[in-house]
Formats: sequence, structure tokens, C-alpha cells
Amino acid sequence: MNFADRLDDAVARVGHPLVLGVDPHLDLLPEEYARARSLEVPRAVRADALTAFCCELINIAAGRVAAVKPQAAFFELLGADGWRAFESVVEHAHAQGLLVIGDVKRGDVPSTARAYATAHLGSAEDGRPACDAITVNPYLGEDAMQPFLETCVATGRGLFVLVRTSNPGSGLFQGHGDPPLAEVVARSVAGWGEKLRGECGLSSVGAVVGATHPEELQRLRAAMPHTPLLLPGLGAQGATAADCRAAFPDPTHPWRGGLINSSRGIAFAWRRPEHANRPWKDAARKALDATIAELRDALGLAPC
Amino acid sequence: MNFADRLDDAVARVGHPLVLGVDPHLDLLPEEYARARSLEVPRAVRADALTAFCCELINIAAGRVAAVKPQAAFFELLGADGWRAFESVVEHAHAQGLLVIGDVKRGDVPSTARAYATAHLGSAEDGRPACDAITVNPYLGEDAMQPFLETCVATGRGLFVLVRTSNPGSGLFQGHGDPPLAEVVARSVAGWGEKLRGECGLSSVGAVVGATHPEELQRLRAAMPHTPLLLPGLGAQGATAADCRAAFPDPTHPWRGGLINSSRGIAFAWRRPEHANRPWKDAARKALDATIAELRDALGLAPC
Repeated sequence: MNFADRLDDAVARVGHPLVLGVDPHLDLLPEEYARARSLEVPRAVRADALTAFCCELINIAAGRVAAVKPQAAFFELLGADGWRAFESVVEHAHAQGLLVIGDVKRGDVPSTARAYATAHLGSAEDGRPACDAITVNPYLGEDAMQPFLETCVATGRGLFVLVRTSNPGSGLFQGHGDPPLAEVVARSVAGWGEKLRGECGLSSVGAVVGATHPEELQRLRAAMPHTPLLLPGLGAQGATAADCRAAFPDPTHPWRGGLINSSRGIAFAWRRPEHANRPWKDAARKALDATIAELRDALGLAPC
Repeated sequence: MNFADRLDDAVARVGHPLVLGVDPHLDLLPEEYARARSLEVPRAVRADALTAFCCELINIAAGRVAAVKPQAAFFELLGADGWRAFESVVEHAHAQGLLVIGDVKRGDVPSTARAYATAHLGSAEDGRPACDAITVNPYLGEDAMQPFLETCVATGRGLFVLVRTSNPGSGLFQGHGDPPLAEVVARSVAGWGEKLRGECGLSSVGAVVGATHPEELQRLRAAMPHTPLLLPGLGAQGATAADCRAAFPDPTHPWRGGLINSSRGIAFAWRRPEHANRPWKDAARKALDATIAELRDALGLAPC
């Protein structure tokens, strides 16, 4: 079963398209993981603290969301020890029955892109744990995407190509030209995905479109009718669940169309005044429930 | 001393702008490092073989080139063990007196970009080994570049921003619009670099411009008069030293203007017919000498 169908199944099972971003900002970790940020502690010990936090967060999400999206940068900050932590987190998420979208945003010339694809999506020969999908950066063009696409065909895994990112300054280059670059990239992404359509109708080649640009989301959805959209920007970055509606156009399968990501809003809910004096895991559970309810409401999904 | 000046000194000392790319493609390694590619061997042992090869290659380059450019993807292929190898290679190159340009092509939204910047360029507090400069991808825009730029100000390190990459398909998005995106990015790079100019006149914010596009190189050099250019594409990708001339416009400092990269042409010279039956290190040494001589000739530099 290819990534598109596995994702569709998993989303249908939990009944909503929320994906939990696992973004362990060292500065935001609860006090019991403070040694993760201490420069006096050996790096391997810091990485163990990072792993422990992420695995607890994943335990909270298990059975409640379809997928988690660990952000590689916060692991890479601890070098090789951080990469060991990343691998443990991917393995733990899989053991908990979750799909894993590695937020690595890689991209390079073709021969190098092949190495990144194998590193994160595995290969037909190599049975080691790998992500179910990764994010990739399209700046280098179509030939640089081919190794990622070929790896998806060989392994049944998926991609989310950056189209329109959620940061405030993303329009500078992504909005360049007429039509704007993001639309040109979107049409390419739609084309690349045609060969990787699943039985659910969607492709294993998805696109990242910030939920912070609702007006563009509609145009980009039209340019990519069969592309699962990964929508970051909910919560901390200012987007609401209602801003994501255009990504989910199928009235008979209202959860189908992509994934809406929340990271800090859940993992670091304990830092918000309304959760004062609540243990971080309780705050994360409450925030997760509230976000799922908000999403169900905005997309017209039946409450579980 | 900031990165621009350290680079300028190092290039002046060796008398040419060649940078050695350390791209350990597993499939191309000499027979004595074959265990690096064997799926039957523990990954840590494979990573040790990778480290051994790269360190031997660096020994050949020491004192002959200003900088080496390890390509992260080939290390990342071996996960956490590969990252341990990458760190050893950076450390060994520094011990040999070489500048290190980490070819990581990272880029993400601002809060995440900060983690990548600290991971690869270090921070003011964190004294651990880091690259002297890294390559970054500009697709996400100016706000996503700021954390990298701020880290360069704080640490005296540098960047090479992807502008026009060397792969055949790079025009698809980089050539979009009028003026083409690459020119718009180039003007931004020039602006970002103004605050980071060194005493040599060049900035610590460089740009990647494929040597495979000589006609564009001239226009891009004009848009970025103070930007050191990192020119990949020599050898395996088809560019010649003469194609790079426009990057070096200063007649009184003819080596000044950037770095010309060669990777496979040197490390894997032993695979070419003219080096048949020569040990790989001898072949690499001969190829390195020949490439330096070709560059000196093309740029009108005095032979050492």
C-alpha cells in the first residue's frame, strides 16, 4: 500500500487530519528535561533527555492522531547524538502505530539528492527504519526531485514538497513572477504526483502550503487537485482550523485532503496562562483534545 | 577576523581558489573502503570506513587548497553514525589547517532555521567545532535567512546561498519570471551581505552559482559585486576552469572572488582510464595538481 493510501486510512481511523509536530525547541522544554539545554552536560546525555521528552509526547498522541512530524533541526542541533535521538523517536513513533513525516526539507543536485532520499526514505534493499514521508525543497528543479520520486516509487513512501511556506516572509521568492513561483511549483508537484496516485485518489507526493495564507490555499488546491497538503502554521503562527477548509474539498470524505500540523500549541501548551500549574503532559493532552475538537468543528467532521 | 577575510587569506596563501569537495559516494569508494557500502557490516563500522577515506583525502589536500567542502548527504546516509563521521571529518580538516564549508543546503522557517544555524555554525556560547561556512537554500525568503545571518555576525562564520545551481534542470524554478528568480535572489544576497563585508572587500555571505552556466555567471557577478561565489560543476558536471573567469574580476588580486569546487574529479580520479593501475591516492594527487594548474592557467595566476 503506498503512502497516500496508508495516510488516508490512518486519517479516516482517527477521524481528523491533525498531525502532531514534534519540534523539541531546547529553550521551551519542561523543567524536568532542562539538562537537554545545559552546555555543562555531555551531549549524549542532553540527547537522551530530548528523546525522553519526544517519546512522552508521542505516547500522548498515539491512537489520537494519524501521524507525527519530527523536525530534524532540533535534533541536528545536538549533532550525531541528536541524530541518534531522531532515530529513536522515529522508531518509537512507528512502535506506537503512528506514521512519521520527517520534516527535513532536504534538496540537492541529483546524485546528492539520491543520498538524502535513501537516508530518510530507505531503499528497496535496506530494511532499516525510515520515515514514511519527508519534506523536500524544490528550489533546485525537477531533475533534483527525481531521486526522491523514484525512491517513493521503490519504497511506497511519500514526499511533501515546499510550495508556499508558513513564515511571514515566504512571499519574497515564492511570490516572484506572474504567475507567482508558488503556483508554478504547485503545477509541477501535481504533475510529479500523477504516477504516485493511490486508490484513495490522492498522490503520495504532497505539498506544504502554510495555513497562514488562506486566500492562496484555494488557488493552490485548484492547481493540485490530487495532492495531499501539509498545512503548518496553526496556533503559534496565527492560522486557525477554519483557514484550512479549502484543502478538504471532498464532501463525502471531509477528512480527506491533507494534514493540519500543530507543534508548539500542543507540546508547549503548559507554558500558556490557561494551563498554569498543570503538569506539561496534562496540558498537552488538553491542548490536543481542544485542537482536534476545533478541527472537527471547522471541517464539519463528526465528533468521535 | 570574519569568514570573508579568513577565506581571502587562505586562498592568497595557496595561490588559487580551488576548494576540494569531499563527497564520499559509497558506490565510488576505492576497494579498500568497500565495507562502507556493505549492508552486512554494522553501520558504525561502515561510518568508520567513510571517515578513514575522507581523512586520507583531506591529508592529500592539506596545504594545497584553502578549504574543503564535505557534502552532508553522503554522511547522513549512514544516520547517526554518519553524522559522527561528518564531525570527525570537520575536526580533521581543521586540524590540517583547512577551512571547512559544510555543504548542508539547509533552510527552514525562522525559529527552525536558528536551530540549523547553531547546529552547523555554532553559537557565541558553544565552543564546539563547527563549519566555517555552510550552504543554505533561500526558497523560504529573507526572514528565514535572518537567523543564519545573525549567527554569522555573532560567530564570524559565513554562508553560501544557493542562487543558480549546477544541475541541468536548475532553470525550471531559478529561471522563472522576468527578471529570472536567480537574479532576484542574487540581489537579495548582495544586500544581506553588506553588513558582513570584510577588510578584503568581499562579504562573508557568498552565493552558489554553477560553473555550468558561464553566460549567467557574468550577470550574476554584476548583481553581486562583493559576494564570494562558490562555483560547483567543474569536471564531472562539464564546466571548465575558463568558464569561471567572470567570477574573478579583480586584476590586482586575480585569485579573489570565490571558490571553484572539484569533488569527484579528484577523489575518484583513480576510476578514470588515464589513472588505471595507479593507487587511488596517487591518482587523487595527480588530479589535484592538474586541476590547480588548469585553474592557475585559466585565471592568469602565477604557478607556485
